[in-house]
Amino acid sequence: MNHRTVFFVSDQTGITAETLGHSLMTQFDGLKFRSVTVPFIDSVDKAKKTVNRINLTAEVEGARPIIFATLVTDEIRKVLVESRGLFMDFFDTFIGPLERELELRSSHTVGMAHGVSNTTAYARRIDAMNFALDNDDGASTRGYERADVILVGVSRSGKTPTCLYMALHYGIFPANYPLAEEEFEKGQLPAALEPYRQKLYGLTISPERLQQVRSERRPGSRYASAQQVSFELRSAKALFDKNGIAFLDTSECSIEEIASTVLHSKGLLDRNDEPAQPDPV
Amino acid sequence: MNHRTVFFVSDQTGITAETLGHSLMTQFDGLKFRSVTVPFIDSVDKAKKTVNRINLTAEVEGARPIIFATLVTDEIRKVLVESRGLFMDFFDTFIGPLERELELRSSHTVGMAHGVSNTTAYARRIDAMNFALDNDDGASTRGYERADVILVGVSRSGKTPTCLYMALHYGIFPANYPLAEEEFEKGQLPAALEPYRQKLYGLTISPERLQQVRSERRPGSRYASAQQVSFELRSAKALFDKNGIAFLDTSECSIEEIASTVLHSKGLLDRNDEPAQPDPV
Repeated sequence: MNHRTVFFVSDQTGITAETLGHSLMTQFDGLKFRSVTVPFIDSVDKAKKTVNRINLTAEVEGARPIIFATLVTDEIRKVLVESRGLFMDFFDTFIGPLERELELRSSHTVGMAHGVSNTTAYARRIDAMNFALDNDDGASTRGYERADVILVGVSRSGKTPTCLYMALHYGIFPANYPLAEEEFEKGQLPAALEPYRQKLYGLTISPERLQQVRSERRPGSRYASAQQVSFELRSAKALFDKNGIAFLDTSECSIEEIASTVLHSKGLLDRNDEPAQPDPV
Repeated sequence: MNHRTVFFVSDQTGITAETLGHSLMTQFDGLKFRSVTVPFIDSVDKAKKTVNRINLTAEVEGARPIIFATLVTDEIRKVLVESRGLFMDFFDTFIGPLERELELRSSHTVGMAHGVSNTTAYARRIDAMNFALDNDDGASTRGYERADVILVGVSRSGKTPTCLYMALHYGIFPANYPLAEEEFEKGQLPAALEPYRQKLYGLTISPERLQQVRSERRPGSRYASAQQVSFELRSAKALFDKNGIAFLDTSECSIEEIASTVLHSKGLLDRNDEPAQPDPV
């Protein structure tokens, strides 16, 4: 089997290079690859050390490393281009066409998207995360007035990770409410949710997967039994249907996919400029 | 001022297109832009509807929209290319050079990086998030044996968001422990942390910023007073120095930068293949 080392090199965190690079690499089925992220390469000296590291890898492995980079300054890029790896810079490739289209020169500044320039967006994400923690698992329902979206579903259907992801990544204010015996017996929405019907979004999951997840948490419990799991999921589904609540089966979804589907469905993905999400470069 | 609408089009969540696209757009100072994310464009029909939407925007605004795409299948890309916007596909551009270098054909399959193919990584991230929540703010110290890293710092120095981000994004198992009066009076590490010295990483923050953050939380309190804030930060710094704990000033950092710096410093960024972080496409 083919084997390669993939370097993600950035003058900032390297997260963008990693994300896109991984997406590209997973398109190659027959390949095993090893990831090395090299963040904060913001000087020629650091760039030269990185080149040495890449060249050493090339020699030891007898195969050309792949380099995905997001480098803003030409000076540092010039150093990396000279390495023995296959060098691909995500910035360099697209900045030219954009400059021509916009008839503007790009600033070529490291860190534009981060820190001071974006404190509003940053503060919003921290606020959003605190909001998500305060309004997790029905702990408090006082914040629902301010919530952008309220997830409902049975225990372990994916509510908490999705809420935290939406908060940290998009600066969305999410709450979540666990559906349990009380709601299922009455067959109606809890009173606390009634005023916020339009903010509700349901999560469901396959019985097999839910049983597995719950069994890891509390093996052999009623909570994890096939009967209980199936009863809860059927009741939740009935509640969604009865109240016209859109819902998603999370069994085969990643956290990103769940978050994105929820936000898309609630019309929360179209934003004016100054996005709440800063751009991890 | 120049104004443009930017579309992020993907057959999956659009998160990669957004992240890289935003990074590129913020390189243009004199530009205001509006973001529209169009996820899950996985059929020719949906692609055609998206083209209509883009063309309508072009007409209404009298300016060519910018389109950043991550599309795996040529069939759908062909439809988008025909729109009146400036079309740039992050996949298409780099797949060719990679295929030649690796002497492999890419699978051109939507969703490779997600869902079923990556359940291990997915389960790991969920476990990591539950671990981070269970081991937040010194709530429990029993998990420290399993922790990859333990953040220490005063209240509101950025520990919780950084831990949740590392867990959700990297599948890292993080804990955090708040430094408070007791540690400062004794001038030494709490006993619970002693066995895990090599896992510790310190966060600090400027007195001005900490006072601001705490004042928003509890206005006029001793907790938010200049004197208290300055005392705590000095004591924490002294503790880091005395115990040789590496630390970072988070005042000007985004969550991504803090997380990335911590992981880099702890050697947690180099991974073998099958990364814990799935690739949001």
